[in-house]
Amino acid sequence: MKNILPRSVEAMSALLSTLPSIGPKTANRLTFFLLGRQEGELDEFGQAFINLKKNLVTCSKCFLISETDPCIICQDKSREQDKLVVVEEPLDVLAMEKAHWTGLYHVLGGQISPINNVSPDDLKIKELLMRLESGNIREVILATDTVLEGEATALYIDEQVNKAQKEGKLKGIKITRIARGLPVGGDLEYADELTLARALEGRRTYSNRD
Amino acid sequence: MKNILPRSVEAMSALLSTLPSIGPKTANRLTFFLLGRQEGELDEFGQAFINLKKNLVTCSKCFLISETDPCIICQDKSREQDKLVVVEEPLDVLAMEKAHWTGLYHVLGGQISPINNVSPDDLKIKELLMRLESGNIREVILATDTVLEGEATALYIDEQVNKAQKEGKLKGIKITRIARGLPVGGDLEYADELTLARALEGRRTYSNRD
Repeated sequence: MKNILPRSVEAMSALLSTLPSIGPKTANRLTFFLLGRQEGELDEFGQAFINLKKNLVTCSKCFLISETDPCIICQDKSREQDKLVVVEEPLDVLAMEKAHWTGLYHVLGGQISPINNVSPDDLKIKELLMRLESGNIREVILATDTVLEGEATALYIDEQVNKAQKEGKLKGIKITRIARGLPVGGDLEYADELTLARALEGRRTYSNRD
Repeated sequence: MKNILPRSVEAMSALLSTLPSIGPKTANRLTFFLLGRQEGELDEFGQAFINLKKNLVTCSKCFLISETDPCIICQDKSREQDKLVVVEEPLDVLAMEKAHWTGLYHVLGGQISPINNVSPDDLKIKELLMRLESGNIREVILATDTVLEGEATALYIDEQVNKAQKEGKLKGIKITRIARGLPVGGDLEYADELTLARALEGRRTYSNRD
């Protein structure tokens, strides 16, 4: 097919289709949608892209992307200073905030994955151990994804922390894993067997009867 | 929830979620994907947005978006000059090109839709009739969408052309509608009743037996 579209339109489609979950057809549709917008709006989009990473830093404590170092979460003394949730990505922090977590975070930057050539050294695990040594964290909650790599990453961190406690480098730190179970609103009938097995393993008495 | 994300990240997410088929979650995911790109790539994106509509015109013959007027399709004398496909949107031209159409186009700019306040005057229908008066088009193929509004638009154009032919303003123009029927690769069992009824109506003998 001969190129019948203007170069700027082709260029936009090509760029958009490099984004995750956007295929060539969606890219075309988005491009033509954008063609219907005012030039001022397109300039606004353009500036948003150009400025996205300007003035951004990574928080040197929790490794969240931020405008300040430390980030506003690490600066916030009203948050619980002794509880730390370990997540893989900044987006996970957003999810935890929506779930009303009021403690601190540590962003690993991914998950251990030999297939994708990501080793523990590529993640902020050493930094986590150093942070635990120097800080007053009492509980570390491992909230990595509940897929194979996320579980392996959680297990690895658990081992590292336990080892450091045995060696006396760390002490009095409780390390937990977020619960795996039926999602709220979930239908037992449709739960997969692994989730169901985990939900059984993690069964609890009602707290008022404890 | 307090705003824990940098303003540039919030701004990008907000802008992306104004695009069709991109909800707030996808917008966040895309934004964090973009945060992982180099600044040079983000600048490239930014420039693509800023330059998208610069130097673009609408072809004064077929109303396709173009860098030149007339557009490269209208300029191309190797295309069949007497056959014209009427479509709603520029994207439809792309689809027709992929189906190896070698004639001309006329882009209406939408479909007649009282609900959305789009009347025939908002579309390039008058321009189509003027083009038919002055040109040497022998066949007009109505290729609007096969939804209610697209059918109504096709019907309206058919009526206008027939009226003009009766009044002597136009002559010798055959007007056709693209076939409605089973999609190729389609399974009869799963076809909806309207499509099936249309497929029956449009039945043909094999051409070698005509």
